[in-house]
Amino acid sequence: MYELQSYSRFMERIYFDNAATTAMDPIVLEAMMPYFTDKFGNPSSIYSYGRESKMAIEQARKSVAKLLNANPGEIFFTSGGTESSNTAITAAVYDLGCKHIISSRIEHHATLHTVELWNHRHGIKLSFVKLDEKGHVDLEDLRRLLETSEERCLVSLMHANNEIGNLLPIDAVGNLCKEFDAIFHCDTVQTVGHYPISLRDTPVHFITGAGHKFHGPKGVGILYVNENVTIKPLLNGGGQERNMRAGTENLYGIVGFARALELAMERYAEDSQYIEELKQYMAQQLQQQVPGVRFNGDYKGRSLYTVLNVAFPKSEKSEMILFNLDMAGICVSGGSACSSGANAGSHVINAINSDPNVVPVRFSFSRHNTRAEVDAVIEKVKESI
Amino acid sequence: MYELQSYSRFMERIYFDNAATTAMDPIVLEAMMPYFTDKFGNPSSIYSYGRESKMAIEQARKSVAKLLNANPGEIFFTSGGTESSNTAITAAVYDLGCKHIISSRIEHHATLHTVELWNHRHGIKLSFVKLDEKGHVDLEDLRRLLETSEERCLVSLMHANNEIGNLLPIDAVGNLCKEFDAIFHCDTVQTVGHYPISLRDTPVHFITGAGHKFHGPKGVGILYVNENVTIKPLLNGGGQERNMRAGTENLYGIVGFARALELAMERYAEDSQYIEELKQYMAQQLQQQVPGVRFNGDYKGRSLYTVLNVAFPKSEKSEMILFNLDMAGICVSGGSACSSGANAGSHVINAINSDPNVVPVRFSFSRHNTRAEVDAVIEKVKESI
Repeated sequence: MYELQSYSRFMERIYFDNAATTAMDPIVLEAMMPYFTDKFGNPSSIYSYGRESKMAIEQARKSVAKLLNANPGEIFFTSGGTESSNTAITAAVYDLGCKHIISSRIEHHATLHTVELWNHRHGIKLSFVKLDEKGHVDLEDLRRLLETSEERCLVSLMHANNEIGNLLPIDAVGNLCKEFDAIFHCDTVQTVGHYPISLRDTPVHFITGAGHKFHGPKGVGILYVNENVTIKPLLNGGGQERNMRAGTENLYGIVGFARALELAMERYAEDSQYIEELKQYMAQQLQQQVPGVRFNGDYKGRSLYTVLNVAFPKSEKSEMILFNLDMAGICVSGGSACSSGANAGSHVINAINSDPNVVPVRFSFSRHNTRAEVDAVIEKVKESI
Repeated sequence: MYELQSYSRFMERIYFDNAATTAMDPIVLEAMMPYFTDKFGNPSSIYSYGRESKMAIEQARKSVAKLLNANPGEIFFTSGGTESSNTAITAAVYDLGCKHIISSRIEHHATLHTVELWNHRHGIKLSFVKLDEKGHVDLEDLRRLLETSEERCLVSLMHANNEIGNLLPIDAVGNLCKEFDAIFHCDTVQTVGHYPISLRDTPVHFITGAGHKFHGPKGVGILYVNENVTIKPLLNGGGQERNMRAGTENLYGIVGFARALELAMERYAEDSQYIEELKQYMAQQLQQQVPGVRFNGDYKGRSLYTVLNVAFPKSEKSEMILFNLDMAGICVSGGSACSSGANAGSHVINAINSDPNVVPVRFSFSRHNTRAEVDAVIEKVKESI
């Protein structure tokens, strides 16, 4: 077999950007390894060697379905969260008769750019729900939008915001959708693998997940499609995924996704408490040690335990904070990695906070982080602002 | 580091289905390994640790571009051949004004089902070019279709057929497309990594590739987009792949794709000759030892050196041949793995050969196969028919 490289090499740096991606767990890699070597059969091949691969995929699907309390027939493997959200939104328009999309200005670009596309390309009506000062969805406004819509609606709202960590009351939104016969797509990329989710008890039509957000592999995700809706694939071709997602399956990725989710759920109680304490410790230390510091989002309330979005007072020095932290080997981000190439700043922060006098920095944690790292980061932050 | 498992475990079986998927080369896995462990940064993150991942992707892109004689800016990484073909065809319709698609009845389903979708969904005109008795595209018919079209055409024809191995005269087709200002998408999934391709000298707008067809990883592919056309992404979201393919990059897959292509091209002269000899040896032995055997496609002429599609005379026994070979540990297929779930038989064989009295079996080879394996398979075939 193989010996896994130790974590020591990356422990020289401090990695506080776990909302962007996470280190793969060695146990996950171990589960994937046989499929890189001798178990390489095409899962669609009908001979026994292909069927062994197929069985590994179906075993992964069962495991994921069980952990999310769904039917295996409702779980489809994709190349990641972006493909999953694109599939759900496109299907709602083409297959489920939605002619009005209600979303928010703080969605991930995988949602935002897709709903904008349908708005531009096919004249699908697009409304953005109001947000309160903490960035939470205004449920009364959502009700109003649904009530006054003359068309069937798709509501696309994320479960947890990847930049500020805000959590959506998914049941309340789902029940509103039910009341108005709307389709509900919930981008759960930041919550699958981070919270227990029971889909059988959640009024939602589509959710999404990405393996690399919870110590699984990149390049693989899931789309949950509630059994009460029937849609067509986004990627057309072979009959893989029961005709719902064409293309030779990413066998290792799928096996890794399931293993990572199993581990995440086994570890949930312990990890979530540990990480929440780290986050609150960091918030408290920042408040004590950095004058004028504030937080974006609802960090003490309905919030991901993994994300702390800090608003530093703007100054010549603080504008260089990301650069200086990087020089010190500290990985943090100004916003989403997926939009970090853009110069316009974070669309999320811009949507909830028009104050130009702050510099937003997202710190996001995993079980690999420690209080000592928090202390080291705070020291560096103090030097940098 | 790790010790790779030996090939001995799968050498008990004979794997003659390399057109479906191939064993990953251990050298490819070795190149991927660091990105599974300590080099896990998100390529879109702007700190140095993310930029290291980005550099690995850009290095892979440069290497692939160089091997295909293209510009790095023309190479986009995707989740596989199916996504690549879906992207190209959809873009031709939406972004390049194609209102008439000319394809063939023997395309891979990734093309066929996608062009059918656009035909049904948006009334895009769809024509199928005539094929000769060997399954080659009738170029005169293609010219006639282009000449008489009142709309801008997309021509979507595959470079090598995955079931019967026929090779398209890509330059001739590309020049015809040029003459009539048509867009040319060529599904090259069976030829990238199997033949030298010089895109700078080939009149084509889109080609596709899939890593797992040439001893690279599953779940990763490329789309080449000629620099003279500008298209929008199929998957919308983050700015990855220069805004052409959203979603966190499959970092290990991309690194593995490039390494596999490098190896394939280094080994091309030797491997292609060796495999062609195996194929012709098998054809010859079958003809000598199996009465009534014929071949689908142009196996001695313009044909992939990796694929031999055999037409066995139909009998009660020969109809069980796939089953019996499987029982003997021999992996071969009746058609494409991607459509092997279907009961209607191969759409390719049905399109070129209406003779109901033959049983088609595809044998497809790689450098891992040997003459001794061919001999063993022939013995088993003789027992089975």
